[in-house]
Amino acid sequence: MYLSASNIKKMSRVKRLNIINSVSGVKPGNLIGTKDQNSQTNLAIISSVVHLGSNPPYLGFILRPDQNVRRHTYENILENGLFTINHITSNLIEQAHYTSAKFEKNISEFKKCGFTEEYIEDFSTPFVKESKLKMGLIHEESVTIKSSGTLMVIGRILHLIVPDTALSEEGHIDLNIADSVGISGLNSYYALDKIGQFPFARVDIEKKPN
Amino acid sequence: MYLSASNIKKMSRVKRLNIINSVSGVKPGNLIGTKDQNSQTNLAIISSVVHLGSNPPYLGFILRPDQNVRRHTYENILENGLFTINHITSNLIEQAHYTSAKFEKNISEFKKCGFTEEYIEDFSTPFVKESKLKMGLIHEESVTIKSSGTLMVIGRILHLIVPDTALSEEGHIDLNIADSVGISGLNSYYALDKIGQFPFARVDIEKKPN
Repeated sequence: MYLSASNIKKMSRVKRLNIINSVSGVKPGNLIGTKDQNSQTNLAIISSVVHLGSNPPYLGFILRPDQNVRRHTYENILENGLFTINHITSNLIEQAHYTSAKFEKNISEFKKCGFTEEYIEDFSTPFVKESKLKMGLIHEESVTIKSSGTLMVIGRILHLIVPDTALSEEGHIDLNIADSVGISGLNSYYALDKIGQFPFARVDIEKKPN
Repeated sequence: MYLSASNIKKMSRVKRLNIINSVSGVKPGNLIGTKDQNSQTNLAIISSVVHLGSNPPYLGFILRPDQNVRRHTYENILENGLFTINHITSNLIEQAHYTSAKFEKNISEFKKCGFTEEYIEDFSTPFVKESKLKMGLIHEESVTIKSSGTLMVIGRILHLIVPDTALSEEGHIDLNIADSVGISGLNSYYALDKIGQFPFARVDIEKKPN
């Protein structure tokens, strides 16, 4: 099916949201944990985490400032500068999806959605105990994206927890063994099945096309 | 396994690249097609495409300005303002990976890696014929991310091609039927297996935790 910009503009809002949220391809399923100055915790599902750099290790994610749910997440990050990113595993998808409901600020999605807060030394913001691959980050920068009216929130990794069984000697993480999930659109969840791994690509090694 | 910022800093460069490029979770596998003023085409694998907005429909991707391969992509985008994003399907992963080799600017990865240029009316930049889900975009904005020394390149979707069989009435795209792949780290490829789809989450429908 072919759709022009004009076809997309004329669609119903819900259909357009579903399609355009899917066309980037699979998105990583993560939960962002935060805490405010009054120790009120918050947990939000985010499918826009993106790698920005390895040394120092930077990740970013996208927020819409007008979105009620994620606004609490960003307010908390501005208050104490810390957040956690926790991979969603396949047994957690329904609970994780439920964090996207519009809970009031004085309600913690940890409790409401059946997740357990987990803390490590010298880091005041909660991790998700049920998650297997998780990170604690410090907020470094927020960048405004004018065209789309969105914000990229950038953090530097201070703490990284990876399941031993998913990590190879060379540092490859097997997302199938880690049981991390992908997301399509706003509400579909995918398990990951490894189908190939290739060496660093070099010009001099010609590949035969299929 | 627990790794602190200091542990990560002290790792070998290659191990750090492998780990930190994996911790964001699964990444969408896409090929970016471009063309310069002399009709020289270019094709680059990019795993950082991210959804930014649905109305108008915006996508972004991350570039490192110092990276030789993707530099040609960005130079071409600056020359004529257009690029295509083409989902990688499972039978294309080896060829797609090979586009990351450092080809000279006068070499087209389309030809070298066994892909076919495909054109539609009123859009001068090539799509990947072998890809099933693809978009033609116009460059809207580039945003500098200071902390990580990277650039986010933002485009607006002008043309969208989706396989009929993968698109539902409500606009959901099934990435398993579209055969779109995910990427972990720098060189691992994953097929997607749908495990759940949930309605829009509401506060008043309490979910039972697992």
